[in-house]
Amino acid sequence: MTAVAAPANAGFASLDALVRPRSVAVIGASDEPARIGGRPIAYMKERGFDGALWPVNPKRATVQGLPAFAAVEALPAAPDVAIIAVPADQVTPTLDALGRKGCRAVIVFSAGFAEMDEAGAAAQDRLTAVARGHGIRMLGPNCLGVFNDSIRFYGTFTASFEKGFPIPGNIGIVSQSGAYGTHVFSAALDRGLGAPVVITTGNEAEVALGDALGWMAQAPEVEVICAYAEGIRESAQFIAALDLARRNRKPIVMMKVGRSQLGGAAAKSHTASIAGDDTVTQAVLDEFGVVRARTTEEMLDIAYAATKRIYPARNTLGVLTVSGGAGVLISDAAEQAGVEMPPMPEEAQARLRGLVPFCAPRNPVDCTAQVTNNLPLISEFAESVARDGGYTSILSFWSQTAAGRSVGPSLQEQMRKVRTAHPDRLWVMSMLAPNKVRDYEADGWICFEDPSRAVNAIAAMGRFGAAFARAADAAPGPSLPAVTLPAATPSEAVAKALLDAAGVPAVPEHACSDSEAAVMAADRIGYPVVLKILSPDILHKSEIGGVLLDVGDAAAVRQGFGTLLDRARRHAPAARIEGVLVAKQIKGAVEMALGVLRDPVFGPVAMVGLGGVFIEVLKDVGFRRCPFDAAEAERMIRGLRGFPLLDGARGRPKADVAALARALSALSAFAVAAGPRLAGVDVNPLLVLPDGQGCFAADAVVEVDG
Amino acid sequence: MTAVAAPANAGFASLDALVRPRSVAVIGASDEPARIGGRPIAYMKERGFDGALWPVNPKRATVQGLPAFAAVEALPAAPDVAIIAVPADQVTPTLDALGRKGCRAVIVFSAGFAEMDEAGAAAQDRLTAVARGHGIRMLGPNCLGVFNDSIRFYGTFTASFEKGFPIPGNIGIVSQSGAYGTHVFSAALDRGLGAPVVITTGNEAEVALGDALGWMAQAPEVEVICAYAEGIRESAQFIAALDLARRNRKPIVMMKVGRSQLGGAAAKSHTASIAGDDTVTQAVLDEFGVVRARTTEEMLDIAYAATKRIYPARNTLGVLTVSGGAGVLISDAAEQAGVEMPPMPEEAQARLRGLVPFCAPRNPVDCTAQVTNNLPLISEFAESVARDGGYTSILSFWSQTAAGRSVGPSLQEQMRKVRTAHPDRLWVMSMLAPNKVRDYEADGWICFEDPSRAVNAIAAMGRFGAAFARAADAAPGPSLPAVTLPAATPSEAVAKALLDAAGVPAVPEHACSDSEAAVMAADRIGYPVVLKILSPDILHKSEIGGVLLDVGDAAAVRQGFGTLLDRARRHAPAARIEGVLVAKQIKGAVEMALGVLRDPVFGPVAMVGLGGVFIEVLKDVGFRRCPFDAAEAERMIRGLRGFPLLDGARGRPKADVAALARALSALSAFAVAAGPRLAGVDVNPLLVLPDGQGCFAADAVVEVDG
Repeated sequence: MTAVAAPANAGFASLDALVRPRSVAVIGASDEPARIGGRPIAYMKERGFDGALWPVNPKRATVQGLPAFAAVEALPAAPDVAIIAVPADQVTPTLDALGRKGCRAVIVFSAGFAEMDEAGAAAQDRLTAVARGHGIRMLGPNCLGVFNDSIRFYGTFTASFEKGFPIPGNIGIVSQSGAYGTHVFSAALDRGLGAPVVITTGNEAEVALGDALGWMAQAPEVEVICAYAEGIRESAQFIAALDLARRNRKPIVMMKVGRSQLGGAAAKSHTASIAGDDTVTQAVLDEFGVVRARTTEEMLDIAYAATKRIYPARNTLGVLTVSGGAGVLISDAAEQAGVEMPPMPEEAQARLRGLVPFCAPRNPVDCTAQVTNNLPLISEFAESVARDGGYTSILSFWSQTAAGRSVGPSLQEQMRKVRTAHPDRLWVMSMLAPNKVRDYEADGWICFEDPSRAVNAIAAMGRFGAAFARAADAAPGPSLPAVTLPAATPSEAVAKALLDAAGVPAVPEHACSDSEAAVMAADRIGYPVVLKILSPDILHKSEIGGVLLDVGDAAAVRQGFGTLLDRARRHAPAARIEGVLVAKQIKGAVEMALGVLRDPVFGPVAMVGLGGVFIEVLKDVGFRRCPFDAAEAERMIRGLRGFPLLDGARGRPKADVAALARALSALSAFAVAAGPRLAGVDVNPLLVLPDGQGCFAADAVVEVDG
Repeated sequence: MTAVAAPANAGFASLDALVRPRSVAVIGASDEPARIGGRPIAYMKERGFDGALWPVNPKRATVQGLPAFAAVEALPAAPDVAIIAVPADQVTPTLDALGRKGCRAVIVFSAGFAEMDEAGAAAQDRLTAVARGHGIRMLGPNCLGVFNDSIRFYGTFTASFEKGFPIPGNIGIVSQSGAYGTHVFSAALDRGLGAPVVITTGNEAEVALGDALGWMAQAPEVEVICAYAEGIRESAQFIAALDLARRNRKPIVMMKVGRSQLGGAAAKSHTASIAGDDTVTQAVLDEFGVVRARTTEEMLDIAYAATKRIYPARNTLGVLTVSGGAGVLISDAAEQAGVEMPPMPEEAQARLRGLVPFCAPRNPVDCTAQVTNNLPLISEFAESVARDGGYTSILSFWSQTAAGRSVGPSLQEQMRKVRTAHPDRLWVMSMLAPNKVRDYEADGWICFEDPSRAVNAIAAMGRFGAAFARAADAAPGPSLPAVTLPAATPSEAVAKALLDAAGVPAVPEHACSDSEAAVMAADRIGYPVVLKILSPDILHKSEIGGVLLDVGDAAAVRQGFGTLLDRARRHAPAARIEGVLVAKQIKGAVEMALGVLRDPVFGPVAMVGLGGVFIEVLKDVGFRRCPFDAAEAERMIRGLRGFPLLDGARGRPKADVAALARALSALSAFAVAAGPRLAGVDVNPLLVLPDGQGCFAADAVVEVDG
């Protein structure tokens, strides 16, 4: 459950037998090509699978013209992979026989397991145990299988090939839902996008999403990965896969559904998945630069643009347009998507104005319909945007002009010339010319009808590029402190001492068992002070009136000590009282809340937010998997909507954001070092003083599992 | 600049001569069909314009085979409309000649006016004056013109007809940008969507966006309106047009660009438009149920769905799917778009479970791929969703199944049957079957490949339906109070008295000119009180320390009186001091901020927000054009992100939202009654007490233009 080092690629290559087999057995093979046990054989025969194909059927001598075997035991050798398409109650014995035969990879189509009911879940557990016992990598059960068109292997019963077999391409698809995975495949096919490798993981009893992603991250067949997930069941392989894909510069665009409460409900009824907290999932995807698609169309838009494998580390967008209106629309879309559009250099602007007096050459560069009267101007403008503007991405908007008899041919020729001269740029064309798209694509263009979709895809390429660059520059994580947790949830004083030792500074304070000790402590700290009841049994002190503020002198300390003990006795008579905590009262600070939660999938996750309404009403918080360094902590803090309050808004002094970031990073390292008994941490408030003066935990709870 | 009553339809029919002429003169007519002055004639000849067509060209006897006239004076009669395609310096004399001839509508293609420079703007002003002097409705200058395919009238020089002439349909397009308007037309054409009427308004010297929208709102040719705007130049006609469209149940989907700072800059350099505050524009569009499209594609998705003219007043969505994954994705999209998906009735769920044991019948209703083995189940499921679920909108997801040889034909037939039995529903199909789309559309279906786009379009139909229903139920606006503004910005006390009289209650308080009067007032009000310096010259009191809180007894009132006068003398020596305001101190209230700003286009606009960081850091505010009733005020308040703070979040008592809504509505009525000398109002804070205890303005500024 804790963070793991990324394994070598080799770990993921263990799926080779599943996705790139040289011999395939089909258990439950059918002579009818349209049946579940018949389809894989029919597809591989039709397309010419380049390996051995062994149907197993006790009742027939041949299946679809191939010699059939009566049982697993009768097979000539252990197949690289076996497809299991038998009734649910025969799956486990079949798997066991395959294991004994020496087979180490299976695809289980059969349904009737965890997706059904409790009994099915128990049967699935037994199945998994048998697979593990034999060291078998098992896809499914209840999955639609896998295909790899590069070797004509179709270990799937999808009916989507009725529309057409895969076409060449470099997109791989991983999906927990078989129907949705093939939907994406089929939608890609309709757009002329080749996705030759598809893996559907079904119930994920053994092979899960992370394994499949990891295989693609190291496989030469795949350069761009589309993934569909309803819930992430394991973290180590998943994290390792995201990390490997990023290091190998293979972008992942993911549809993770179940964001909505509605969607969450449906996800549960659809699969046996544990829908992890979406906020945590989002934080993990952000960490590795996975771009999350909101729609299938957006997923394919991004995958399409990614097939060019141009990922600018710092993305700047130059726009060339024949319509000023479209230029404005594109600017709006770019700002929305967070893509910078720096202006053209002044000299270049002046030169373009000399060519077309009423053009708007800033960026967007509106060359106006004038260029259609003087066609060579088109390449003058395009060349200037590329050369003088130096943009990494260039979007060129031609509307229906590109389809016109009068302008179309010259436009294509001139734009081809400029594109060829600058092959390192991400060149994107927005035009209304359905019959020209294939021609432009042959020239190497990425084509979108809608300019907003083009901008969105361009933005994603920049996000991938930034993530790939971050991976290359990544500093080692923070060093972990030595942490020894107490046997159970400690008192506030112990909690703060633990955190203070780990680098989350505590407010100066003393635990005092009698009122005279409290007065001495207060004298040392300086007035005013805060008094708090001290008890391992009272976690939320303010609920019983256990906190006194603005205690101004020795007499007030004496009186306050008595008041707190009275209140504790009255409201929490069973609580063990250890005395009173005397602390420096800090004023004029910004109140933050820091915390750690233990995600069931991803382990310890740190949180930061501004105190009060920001957290409670607006849910304005940042999350990240532990541990992380101070630079990452500062990125989280700067991402808060309320960040201006730390940055001098409303006439305040700027707060010590650097100290806050150090404390947050230290908390993340503490959470990992503390190990799995750490159930959670709340540091609330953490008081952040003006720049240079640090920050202090004023209250803290460290929850420990006993 | 103030709110206006909606005029009768007749006002907008004055554009009939521009959009539905029976005789057309072309001034600057060219014999060459590809030139600007030649295209309208070429198009009308090719398509057979059903009226008189009179080219004017002093140098030729015929133009494109038609007899030409040497001058405007030589025309056989005043044309219904004249197209002016002459150099900029000849436009005004031409217009004058047309006016003298009796022509009352012109379309000015010529550029070189306000879009160019100061001199051009001055020339445009002269042109407009001549048009107004003759009572001529003038489109342009610098516009691409207008076309109305229903009568084969093409008063435009667009080159987009190279791709094809309009096809039948009920969509109208209004655009300030000619290039963008024809882009939308052309994109619609590519999708098989008919947009036979397009009006581009160019520089809007006389006819503006509102006139064109209003014409479409009353014209039988148009049922669905697409609009593109960079800036709104006038409010009366624009508001009247939105109101008329809503009353006539014609949806408007608008692309209003210039949202971003980037976009705003480009909009300014592209046209001479005043980019109004986008927040105010958004408030106006919301008021009338105009749906704002973020992309061109979204605009056309919504227009396409609207062509069925089914606008549910309370939209509920039922989803029938063969893929559980797609069901989750659709649920996410529906929640995001704010569309309700109530569950199916329990009995119906039980019955469907009887038909397909592993189906998920709640909603989304996942009939699973099982139905492909037993095709009649498809109509059983669909009929149950329509009849038992009673949903107003039904989205049916079939992925590539619809294209399959095995299922496709039966699927279409069964779905047709169910659709025909429930013709009042909004039936939408999501499928990957490009070659089947036209067949399904012929059956009356709305078809989208991407289910998320389908959900978005369905959501828009519900928003239109709700707006149309609100229009039908609309109560008369609030009655306006009698307001007499002082000659200049008054003191706080006078400001609050003005507002109090208009229905925005002020905190109990007394203006006191000496300290003994202050003590007497405080005794009457009850301690603690607040003391504030009273001066017409000091608007922001807290900046000079002019406010004292928690003044607890008579002695403190005396001392405070002196303190405030000292501070005023020191920090604002020139200010006229009228004394000190003694006010009840209210605690435990939620602090709100109310205000009025005068938008240059839409006049007085009221604002509401939660005080402090909510307004200043998060910009969490609602705006609405004045005046409006308390029900609308409450909708604004409930729309704030911070609303939970008024509704009992964090253990607070619920605040008196009804009183707050009354005060906000009263402020909106005050703003209108006060007339154009009212420059702005700030009520900050307005203290809202717990439910039933009202709200009080604690401070107010009423800015008056002298």
